Formats: sequence, structure tokens, C-alpha cells
Amino acid sequence: MILCRKIDEVKNILKNLKKQCKSVGFVPTMGYIHEGHISLVKKALEENDVVIASIFVNPLQFGPNEDFAKYPRNEKRDLAILDSNNVDIVFLPENDEMYGNNFLTKIRVDKLSDVLCGKSRPGHFDGVCTVLSKLFHIIEPDRAYFGLKDYQQYIIVKKMVSDLNFNIKIVGLPIVRDDDGLAISSRNIYLSPENRKTALCLNKSFNIVENLLKNGILEPSIIKNKIKEYILGFKNTRVDYIEIVDTETLEPLNEFKENFLLALAVFIGNTRLIDNRIFSLKSYNC
Amino acid sequence: MILCRKIDEVKNILKNLKKQCKSVGFVPTMGYIHEGHISLVKKALEENDVVIASIFVNPLQFGPNEDFAKYPRNEKRDLAILDSNNVDIVFLPENDEMYGNNFLTKIRVDKLSDVLCGKSRPGHFDGVCTVLSKLFHIIEPDRAYFGLKDYQQYIIVKKMVSDLNFNIKIVGLPIVRDDDGLAISSRNIYLSPENRKTALCLNKSFNIVENLLKNGILEPSIIKNKIKEYILGFKNTRVDYIEIVDTETLEPLNEFKENFLLALAVFIGNTRLIDNRIFSLKSYNC
Repeated sequence: MILCRKIDEVKNILKNLKKQCKSVGFVPTMGYIHEGHISLVKKALEENDVVIASIFVNPLQFGPNEDFAKYPRNEKRDLAILDSNNVDIVFLPENDEMYGNNFLTKIRVDKLSDVLCGKSRPGHFDGVCTVLSKLFHIIEPDRAYFGLKDYQQYIIVKKMVSDLNFNIKIVGLPIVRDDDGLAISSRNIYLSPENRKTALCLNKSFNIVENLLKNGILEPSIIKNKIKEYILGFKNTRVDYIEIVDTETLEPLNEFKENFLLALAVFIGNTRLIDNRIFSLKSYNC
Repeated sequence: MILCRKIDEVKNILKNLKKQCKSVGFVPTMGYIHEGHISLVKKALEENDVVIASIFVNPLQFGPNEDFAKYPRNEKRDLAILDSNNVDIVFLPENDEMYGNNFLTKIRVDKLSDVLCGKSRPGHFDGVCTVLSKLFHIIEPDRAYFGLKDYQQYIIVKKMVSDLNFNIKIVGLPIVRDDDGLAISSRNIYLSPENRKTALCLNKSFNIVENLLKNGILEPSIIKNKIKEYILGFKNTRVDYIEIVDTETLEPLNEFKENFLLALAVFIGNTRLIDNRIFSLKSYNC
């Protein structure tokens, strides 16, 4: 596995590979590699000649009161895991390498960035789009891989890529869960053993939705209230949002469509967790 | 000369050329081709194997009260001129081809976009950056050519390209002037014969600066006032701005540096014209 810390270095290596007509799959990460990332790596290995992962905790996508400073980092461990999973190249730049030169540019996807996590984290998706645009230009991959746990991110990145005519295919892959159902996230490490148990309420609230749908309850507002009630029944929980939205426009639905996204953001203690699922009414004979 | 109106069409043609390792020079225009554009084409032909020009009057970069609807267009004439100047490919998309699909994305270069023309034309440079980002991804040129009449645009585009790691060299070329000194612009066609004469006051104000510098007048505020007085001495003139700024940051200078940019925007009748010159104090033995 090749490790590059400099932009010019990684560009040169990729230039040579592209001259040999190798296809390039890209897995952008903020490190603290987990099974979710590995599922992206595996798919990228299937679909491309070369796989490159980036590790960069992007300050632009953290708000002033968020966890940029304490976001978990473990370079040595990350590199060992990526290596043993057959990643070919890791790009691991310093902050200065990315934003050193009096950085002034910002990319924004309107509307889609203003709802759900974008509402609670103003500027977050601008930061995501901006850093990805840089990484896409540096790496020029054929395909880039994203986990659907960050469903809104996936939709926004797809929209940016389509609007700006990036020559990259964006691939979204299913949420990877621990055996007990908790969506895997680097932030799970913040949870105390007790809160770790409580955190299952995010995933379990999907069962509540299933039951309501099966019983013919088709009112988004009722469903959202039932989930809220359920989650707030646990100690140390605070709801950031519970939303039922269109799977493409992310606009709130007051009436159900055939498919809808249920998206949650819940604080368990001080840790903000997100989860989501797409429901198809057909599956419930609605 | 090949004419493409569709994104996929032009991408396919360029893909084949790039497979043959041809270098590509790009001249983005809003059409109504003039000597300024041709100077860019000529340089592009010198430096690249293939030259592509685009013609697209970009609605995103016009304000609601600006001249988008009446901006001069003459497709047939433009194509004839570009053809006779040995352009290889012209990309001439419809508005729908560029922004058809519920377009939501915006690129902004902070600070640099808020001064000079950006102050008078809010959103203008966001529109410029956004459309150029699209065109850069569609065409993937090695070099892109810009006239220094739009000096601020040149600086902003260079900054966007550097910040976002676009793999493109931005080339800025000198202002082309009519024999009497008027900077060539598609908008000059709006001028009545009388206003055409008056318009020379923009270019002539540079002579005033020269004389002041030669006489040791090194106060930006005095120089700006002298120019303002001079321009307002003509009928039908209205000053949008007269600024003396740093050539890279575009920040106003209260004291001279070795080099500075004098930039003007002046309404002659209803037509807003811009011009600029970089002065080097050394040349005036200051």
C-alpha cells in the first residue's frame, strides 16, 4: 500500500496509473476506519483496477461547537486496516496541504443542504462539498463510494456531481450495522456502555414504523410522534430531528408517497447519532 | 470546425482527442466574438493541439436588472469568425442543456467576489465560477484563456482553480483595444456615436494617473478623486467605482505598493463599461 501525504505526490502516482488505463475507485473517509468504510473498500475493489482511500478530518464540515478537535483519530490502526483490506493507495494530507493558501472557495448545494442535518449543522454540507470537490480533482476517480448512513450527504454529493458535470459515478452502499442493529459510526466510540444500549432506540424505531404501516397507519405526523415518544422514553435522549421526507428532494412529506425516507438524529448523552431507512409502502401492502 | 450543442457530444469528441494525447486549450465566451476573444484563440492555438471555444450567455451571472435578455447574440457571425480563426470545436449549449435539471449548486470565492464589480453586481462572480466549473468538467482542458479586461474575473477564476485543485492552467492575456484606446467589449455595441467618444474617458484616465505619478502624487485618494472629476466632466457619465487595489487580493490600497491595479466601472448613458490597468511605481521612478 502506498501512503501519500502530498497532493502532487498522489497526483503523480495516479497519472501513471491512468496512463495505463487503470480505473480508479475512491473511498473518502475521515479515518477511524470501521466496517462501514470496509464495505465501501470491498465494493470499490470489485469495480475498479485501483482503490484509493483518503483520510482527512475536514475542519470545514465541523461547526464551531462541534467535535472537530476530539473527533477520533488513529492513523496507525487505520493504515493497518486499509492495508490488510487491499487498498492500493492512501491519501492522508495535513490540514495545511488542503487549505494552506488563504482558502476562499465554497461549494453549496441549495435546498438539499438546508434540511435534516443541514438545519442542525449550518455550513456542514458546504464543507463536505468543498472538500470532496478538491479530492475529486486531485484523484479524478472513475467512481466514488459513500455509505447510506449519511443519506443526505449521498444525495447532496450526487446532486453536486450532476449539476457541475463531474465525470465521476457516485455509488451509495447500504448502512452497515453491528450485530445488535446499531448503525456503525466512528462516533459510537463516544458512547458509555449504558448509552450504547440506549442508542439501539434509533434502529428499533424502524420496527415501530413497520408495525404502524402494517396496521395501516399512513399519517407521517402520527408516525413521527410515536417514534419521538418511544425515543424520549429512554434516559439521556434528546431528539434533534425525526423526519419523513422524499427520497430524492428530501422535502418533508405530509402525505406518504410510494417510497419515503425516515431520517433520525438523536443525542444519546452528548453524542449525536444519525440513522435512516427507506420504506416502500408496497412491502406493507399499503 | 465541429459544432456541438450537447454535453455528451462534446465530451465524446474530446475523449477521443485526449486518448491521442492531444492537449486542449479552452476559450470560454458569451459570444458576440470580437478581437479580444480572437487574441485568446490565437494564444490557445499556439499553446495547444486542439482549441475549443464555448458560446454561452450564462444567465446565472446576470442580475435581475441587468442585460441578459438584450445581451448581443449573433450565432452565425460568431461561428464564421471562429471558423476562419482556426478554432477546432465550438460548444454552444442551450440553457436547458446547462441548467435543465433543477439546478441547485453554487460556487463562491469569498472576499474577492465582494469588491469592485462584485459589489455592484451581487452574485455575478458566483454565476461565473459555477458555469466555468461546469465547462471545465465538460471540456477538461489543459489551459483556459481569459482576457484581463475582466481582471477581477481572472483573479477569482485563478483562485477557484487553485483552491479546488482543478487540473487546469489559467492564462490571462492583455486587454485588446480599438485604435482610439477603447477596451474592446461586446457591450460597446450599445454605445451611440456620441457616447462612443465619451467612453474614451475610461482609457484616458490612465494618462491622468501617469501624469500624477510622474509628478510624485502618490496618494490613492487624490488620484481617485482626480479621475472622478475628469470622468464626470463628460456628459452622460456616472461612476460605478474607481478603485486602487492590490493586484492579487483586490483589497483597496490606502498607500501605494510597488504594483497596484486601477480599476474603473463607468456608466456611459445606460451602458456600463469597465477598464483597468496595472501600474508599477518603478516605471515612474517613484
